[in-house]
Amino acid sequence: MSGPRPTEDGLIARYFGPLAGPGADGLSDDAATLTPSAGHDLVLTADAVVAGVHFFADDPPASIARKALGVNCSDLAAKGAAPRGVLLTLALADDWTEEWLAGFAAGLAAGLTDFGIPLLGGDTVRSGGPASIGVTAIGEVPSGTMVRRMTAQVGDRLCVSGTIGDAALGLTLRRGPMPPWGRAIGTPARAALIDRYWHPRPRLALAPVLRAQARAAMDVSDGFAGDLAKMLKGGHRSAEIVLADLPLSRAAARAVAADPTVMTTILTGGDDYEILCAVAPERLDACLADAEVAGIPLSVVGTVTHGAEPPGFRAAEGGLLRFPAGSFSHF
Amino acid sequence: MSGPRPTEDGLIARYFGPLAGPGADGLSDDAATLTPSAGHDLVLTADAVVAGVHFFADDPPASIARKALGVNCSDLAAKGAAPRGVLLTLALADDWTEEWLAGFAAGLAAGLTDFGIPLLGGDTVRSGGPASIGVTAIGEVPSGTMVRRMTAQVGDRLCVSGTIGDAALGLTLRRGPMPPWGRAIGTPARAALIDRYWHPRPRLALAPVLRAQARAAMDVSDGFAGDLAKMLKGGHRSAEIVLADLPLSRAAARAVAADPTVMTTILTGGDDYEILCAVAPERLDACLADAEVAGIPLSVVGTVTHGAEPPGFRAAEGGLLRFPAGSFSHF
Repeated sequence: MSGPRPTEDGLIARYFGPLAGPGADGLSDDAATLTPSAGHDLVLTADAVVAGVHFFADDPPASIARKALGVNCSDLAAKGAAPRGVLLTLALADDWTEEWLAGFAAGLAAGLTDFGIPLLGGDTVRSGGPASIGVTAIGEVPSGTMVRRMTAQVGDRLCVSGTIGDAALGLTLRRGPMPPWGRAIGTPARAALIDRYWHPRPRLALAPVLRAQARAAMDVSDGFAGDLAKMLKGGHRSAEIVLADLPLSRAAARAVAADPTVMTTILTGGDDYEILCAVAPERLDACLADAEVAGIPLSVVGTVTHGAEPPGFRAAEGGLLRFPAGSFSHF
Repeated sequence: MSGPRPTEDGLIARYFGPLAGPGADGLSDDAATLTPSAGHDLVLTADAVVAGVHFFADDPPASIARKALGVNCSDLAAKGAAPRGVLLTLALADDWTEEWLAGFAAGLAAGLTDFGIPLLGGDTVRSGGPASIGVTAIGEVPSGTMVRRMTAQVGDRLCVSGTIGDAALGLTLRRGPMPPWGRAIGTPARAALIDRYWHPRPRLALAPVLRAQARAAMDVSDGFAGDLAKMLKGGHRSAEIVLADLPLSRAAARAVAADPTVMTTILTGGDDYEILCAVAPERLDACLADAEVAGIPLSVVGTVTHGAEPPGFRAAEGGLLRFPAGSFSHF
């Protein structure tokens, strides 16, 4: 980089000011305003991603920005909320370059557009270590309609959006060394899995469907098995999942074919950012139909059962796998 | 620490769950809800503090928590907003201990109570480097009444709350080595200055006064001279400040008496977290009276003038000091 380093204000004005939404006034004031819709509750969530923990320091900066944003929008989607705005705190690594920052801003701009959420404010600091990005996402729901995590009832059907396990396999490939199953599935499948790790797809289109049809929901971010256990914690509830019904991408299915033990990674790895929801049996058909209209694949994978044991996963041969709770944690 | 490290969920439940406000459901869900008051806008701000940049890694953890919170509440106060909630992202240093975390949580609890703001959510991660705390603070104002930073007009009187420069002197003392003026002012004065550095006092009681009486306001966080320049940027506005009218604490005044060059630190150092506001001349008396009722000292220090040069500081001897813009930056 030539010339002196720009000031924080200069950086913000150059890279983030142009991305600011209405109410943020080009990020020129100390705070932004947001006018909530009448008769609505705000839904608030904050999640940070850290280099070396949630992403690799040499991941493309545009992907890092998009992921930080996507992870938080995924929480809004799971709660049935429409996105209203984000605030972003970027802690730059000591070796940051303007090229990195320009890439980050470009990825952020793309994510803001794709997820339909305006940038309302933020802060840029030196981290003194690895880069990290903290995001607070704000959404809204008609008053009293936020979809809860803990409210599933025995007998509810469990559904999951998209496909499970791709990002965890993508992480394995991104980290290296190449596992035998990675070699077996070929280059395009490997690229597809890494893309899922880099680019969460928050299921915002599913939000109104969840509000209308789901009894409980959460996003799958720390592994399907662990998050399902979290959803059912307390209240003497467990679940039975039919493994054959778990939606896998073609790439993941080929990986399992090459090495059946990959199934453990699929079930316990993180970073899916899909929606897990519990639906009353009488609502199931309507829920699936609404999801189809919303353009989001939704698969029925099991049922909430009585019991205190961790959720069981029934294999084709009839065996029941259980994973201890909290088998995956970013922390 | 004995035994295995607790999980993120365990830590959150133990230390932060008990602090959660209404709508946050003990932090047991993925998001919190907030019901905005009818006819109000939300005011949103995000500021992070980083060990080694904004605080010392070995500062008391309770002070660090309180500072992270105070810094953000100070922005709400300056915008005329009543606090509604905060989300906090704690990035722990690799060498964190449960004792540190317990102290942090205690300071956070005290700050939440003192500033009257509920904890709505957050995230706890490993930083991979120094500790950092990102806070998003949410306040509200009657629709359309957020006090802006850039709207001061020529002829407006400039006022500042409390005293200026204490925290910057406190930082000098905290950093060491002891300057001659530090030795001259004595132990209690030194402690008072360091306390100001550690414990910002967000002027939330001034918020309704600013909404009613001020034309523009911001909080003084990056140094009085630089922030004043920022407030008047563009629009061919400058200011003349009467140095003798700048409110100094007894400790700061004694430091200046011992070493007049300390005045530069007072004017350009950061971390004041006082309110700088511009008030139309016809509103000045009402503004000062309202501030007195609110229990916040407010001093008239100068006037907004025509001109493009940085604000001038008139010394008793008649000379006019000017500081280049951006003389202090945390970044």
